[in-house]
Amino acid sequence: MLISPGKLLSNINSPQDLKKLDQVQLVELCEELRQFIIDNVSVYGGHFGASLGVVELTVALHYVFNTPTDQLVWDVGHQAYGHKILTGRKEEFHTNRMYGGISGFPKRSESEYDTFGVGHSSTSVSAGLGMAAASKYLGLDQKQHIAVIGDGALTGGMAFEALNHAGVSDTNLLIILNDNCMSIDPNVGALKDYLTDITTSKTYNRLKDDVWNLLGKLSHFGKNAQEVVSKVENGIKATLLSQSNLFESLNLRYFGPVDGHDVDHLVAILRDLQEIKGPKILHCVTVKGKGYGPAEKGNATTWHAPGTFDKISGEIHKKVHNTPQAPKYQDVFGHTLVELARSNDKIMGITPAMPSGSSMNIMMKEMPHRAIDVGIAEQHAVTFSAGLATQGLVPFCNIYSSFMQRAYDQVIHDVCIQNLPVNFCLDRAGFAGADGPTHHGAYDLAFFRCIPNMIVSAPMNEQELRNLMFTAQLPRTGQAFSIRYPRGQGVMTEWRTPFEQIEIGKARIIKEGEGIAILSIGHIGNYVVEACDILAEKDIHPAHYDLRFAKPLDEDLLHKVFTSFKRIITIEDGCVQGGVGSAILEFMADNNYQAEVTRLGIPDRIVEHGEQTELHKECGFDVDGIIQTVEKMLEPISKGLNSY
Amino acid sequence: MLISPGKLLSNINSPQDLKKLDQVQLVELCEELRQFIIDNVSVYGGHFGASLGVVELTVALHYVFNTPTDQLVWDVGHQAYGHKILTGRKEEFHTNRMYGGISGFPKRSESEYDTFGVGHSSTSVSAGLGMAAASKYLGLDQKQHIAVIGDGALTGGMAFEALNHAGVSDTNLLIILNDNCMSIDPNVGALKDYLTDITTSKTYNRLKDDVWNLLGKLSHFGKNAQEVVSKVENGIKATLLSQSNLFESLNLRYFGPVDGHDVDHLVAILRDLQEIKGPKILHCVTVKGKGYGPAEKGNATTWHAPGTFDKISGEIHKKVHNTPQAPKYQDVFGHTLVELARSNDKIMGITPAMPSGSSMNIMMKEMPHRAIDVGIAEQHAVTFSAGLATQGLVPFCNIYSSFMQRAYDQVIHDVCIQNLPVNFCLDRAGFAGADGPTHHGAYDLAFFRCIPNMIVSAPMNEQELRNLMFTAQLPRTGQAFSIRYPRGQGVMTEWRTPFEQIEIGKARIIKEGEGIAILSIGHIGNYVVEACDILAEKDIHPAHYDLRFAKPLDEDLLHKVFTSFKRIITIEDGCVQGGVGSAILEFMADNNYQAEVTRLGIPDRIVEHGEQTELHKECGFDVDGIIQTVEKMLEPISKGLNSY
Repeated sequence: MLISPGKLLSNINSPQDLKKLDQVQLVELCEELRQFIIDNVSVYGGHFGASLGVVELTVALHYVFNTPTDQLVWDVGHQAYGHKILTGRKEEFHTNRMYGGISGFPKRSESEYDTFGVGHSSTSVSAGLGMAAASKYLGLDQKQHIAVIGDGALTGGMAFEALNHAGVSDTNLLIILNDNCMSIDPNVGALKDYLTDITTSKTYNRLKDDVWNLLGKLSHFGKNAQEVVSKVENGIKATLLSQSNLFESLNLRYFGPVDGHDVDHLVAILRDLQEIKGPKILHCVTVKGKGYGPAEKGNATTWHAPGTFDKISGEIHKKVHNTPQAPKYQDVFGHTLVELARSNDKIMGITPAMPSGSSMNIMMKEMPHRAIDVGIAEQHAVTFSAGLATQGLVPFCNIYSSFMQRAYDQVIHDVCIQNLPVNFCLDRAGFAGADGPTHHGAYDLAFFRCIPNMIVSAPMNEQELRNLMFTAQLPRTGQAFSIRYPRGQGVMTEWRTPFEQIEIGKARIIKEGEGIAILSIGHIGNYVVEACDILAEKDIHPAHYDLRFAKPLDEDLLHKVFTSFKRIITIEDGCVQGGVGSAILEFMADNNYQAEVTRLGIPDRIVEHGEQTELHKECGFDVDGIIQTVEKMLEPISKGLNSY
Repeated sequence: MLISPGKLLSNINSPQDLKKLDQVQLVELCEELRQFIIDNVSVYGGHFGASLGVVELTVALHYVFNTPTDQLVWDVGHQAYGHKILTGRKEEFHTNRMYGGISGFPKRSESEYDTFGVGHSSTSVSAGLGMAAASKYLGLDQKQHIAVIGDGALTGGMAFEALNHAGVSDTNLLIILNDNCMSIDPNVGALKDYLTDITTSKTYNRLKDDVWNLLGKLSHFGKNAQEVVSKVENGIKATLLSQSNLFESLNLRYFGPVDGHDVDHLVAILRDLQEIKGPKILHCVTVKGKGYGPAEKGNATTWHAPGTFDKISGEIHKKVHNTPQAPKYQDVFGHTLVELARSNDKIMGITPAMPSGSSMNIMMKEMPHRAIDVGIAEQHAVTFSAGLATQGLVPFCNIYSSFMQRAYDQVIHDVCIQNLPVNFCLDRAGFAGADGPTHHGAYDLAFFRCIPNMIVSAPMNEQELRNLMFTAQLPRTGQAFSIRYPRGQGVMTEWRTPFEQIEIGKARIIKEGEGIAILSIGHIGNYVVEACDILAEKDIHPAHYDLRFAKPLDEDLLHKVFTSFKRIITIEDGCVQGGVGSAILEFMADNNYQAEVTRLGIPDRIVEHGEQTELHKECGFDVDGIIQTVEKMLEPISKGLNSY
């Protein structure tokens, strides 16, 4: 289905075309751009609310600034659809987030207008400041650098680190605070309250009340006193509003708040700001989902990335299935956590701004005092969890695999060196799918496996996830316990199985076999089951073991495997360098075993976006890939062991 | 040499003893405690300035609060010497930082008074908040939780993440801001300026000026106007000072600033604060090195950890050597960076608050506009560097190996996924020595090696470091380039060698040999040279290759090695799980070679503090360890290859 842009938009293939419009036409263009986004997302899916919220800002920025020479950096990038459409990607926009299509995020390799690739939050000020510092050093005094950051992203610590540096940098950096009170879920924390406060001028009003209350004491000055105070008030208002401002505290000139949906005013103010040297911040108040009724009035979290929907009725399409479906792993986590917490009052849930993405919202609803959203703050989430653990509580800290990279030091320094029993649940482990390389959970097995005092596990199905979680909440004297599972569905329709303790480090035998042994870890093991079924028809019968634990390894099992098999395949939905396959090689070397070992997994390169199955196929570890690997290793003319 | 504590201090073996003192005796106790620290550090070395700066605060905290039930969390921990001395570790304090002795940092396994182990910066608020949230959940309403954080540590992003959460937490958390304007080096950034500003009431004074300037316009109100304004001013001063406060913006009740060296006043205010529920911050102004003239008046960076010194004269002892000494690696880095920058104007230096620790202060002095200290902000340092690289500059971002854990996501997400040519220099790689496990750079080879678009290298000596740096600054189209080197001295007295380009991924042959091949990476290769010399006397002649690169591997060389040798030792000053040894095993498996491979390196457990040589010995990869490993592998009765 081809979606046609409106009259003005159809002639815009770059910001140069945009600049040819009269300013009065911008309102109409905004309407067309908004409609084009609605048309596309309703049919093809994707992120929605965030891009609608910055339509006017996007148009104004490209209208006023000299992109791509001026450097425009988006934060996270969910909101950059309008930016992509205006910068030459209108025709291919329907391929957004599809395998081989354009990325759902800004990406340097895709366009010179995408100055900095994003996906994770809170990076834009650092990147923009780096660009601005470079321009300053290179003497490019006229060059502008704009970082657009949401109020949610601003809570991520690295944004604050960057503000602290920006304030003393004397660079041409304009930070635009896109304040919509939302991350994917409603934003939390003191900063949010503060931003609401300054938006509604409560700070100033509080001062005013205090001053007026004083008037009683001043009555002997006569009625003039009130007039004097009024004058003084007006005089100090400007001073107060700037001095009392958090950003001014950090030496950033603060402007706003302004209405982020008044494109005329935005153009005017951006033109003014262009003339003001030095680091500064413009506070724009926007509405997520602006201009599309159901999104504006409905649940903003739902409309963050609604999937496809009927744009007239606002009804979100739901897949209809004729057969019972397996649940999403995240929901198994969410429900199981609540089940466990009902009988173990030591359990606490911690999420850094992902209540709905991790399904911890289930616990937040039933036990609001025991499930805590700490904001976009992975580092804090981990050390906060460590603090809970020191007091004898049992934290389950749920962080997407790729976001866990943000808290790596905290896992080492605050949890594992101290040998604290913190539980980590890593959602979106392995290929994340359409979100692409920034969100692939490719490295966690490798980067967790090298840390002492860390148990590293991955369930092959829902029952295993439940039992690993059950085991993780049982009392233990130390060790972190990580459980990684993928985005998407499991394999069991009847998944509410009774809890069973799992011996830590114990693998599972899926099937005995001969000639070749396959060692899998996690959900990807289900591919192996399928592959073995197909191979059985060819009278090939590999043995299949579900390792369950990348660390500690089941050494008893491995001794048996290496004694019985000379051909071994390891498979993981994670990087092959340093991952579970390498752990098996280490065991082999440490015990002087020999075997031909093929490691399947994510190769040592950046893999782009696409459906998980497409990416598994591309990397040769889908069902076909496994079959081919088995057959190749069993070929009589296989090169066999080298130098023997 | 036994150091005797003063009269009062000698009777204090726990905070319970401290509480028996009359408040008037505290001044004297502070003097004794300060003297005891000076006596100890002057003789045995250690961190100095920070602990002297918090003597009064330490005494007041343990005097007022009910430690260890009340939870006292230090940040970084350089300042916790007084705390250790007052909490039962006076007698063993002279073993501080020595192998087998007490740790230089708070450590949970050492004392119940050490509620949270530290070493890295900016963790205390998160940990303290976790404890406070646990107490709230557990109904322990009277329990107090105190996080003491420096103004430097406060610039670390995770501290801000924690403040944002604390402000809405309704917990009994008292944050004490220990404001001395210093990290190890002078503190930088907008926050520092702000804290100075509120300490000196500049904010209020600016407002006052503005108001008084208004008076001209108010003259028609008569002379009363001035009086009215004066009243109003006083009335709003309190409001303004609280509303205008950065911490109040985050919903933290702010108290102070107070003199951190007035123990009487501190006791009084801490008693008051104990009665005030909810999260709050007390701003204490202290002086690093307080009470010891040479430290107070001298260079605070020098006196951060001066080594041993003459406490009377204040003269710092310098080791006198009769022979020329090899330089520290950090100084080779520092001087070489300047040399390279003189001829390559694209080079920029970036350090997160470690100008003297990394020796980037050399460049900061010669080229202040090209060497940037971004504050304690590793995440920002990396993404800022990425921003510089997008503009064609050549950043050298120097971060200690263990601190690089803080910026792991930024390396993946902002540098490697985008394939940006950023150079990382990782100082303190391998065992850090006396700083212990929080500072050991044990994991970087493993956690960098699994990232695509990353070159991972380590020099064996000064010349190699120079040539790697020279190679890293040559134009290349992508890839991050990491160079890791240890704390301490290299091996070459004549180290200013001419630059030579190194082919990326090319190893070096140190010596040919027979029977066994040793593959080393980095400085630890010098142990191998020594070991081979000793083995030669026994007519054992291993081959020795310096890999130089953990990634990419020198496959040509490895093919030769695996074709020629069936016994191979890998050695690295890094964790054996997932490290370079595993990379060699991966090569072996991928190419179907067989060999007996022994991997030497840091084992899979937390290794405590001590001299680097002591720790290498403990872990079996000092010279003796290497010799023994070679001899064992060559034993005729060696178990050989299993199952053969």
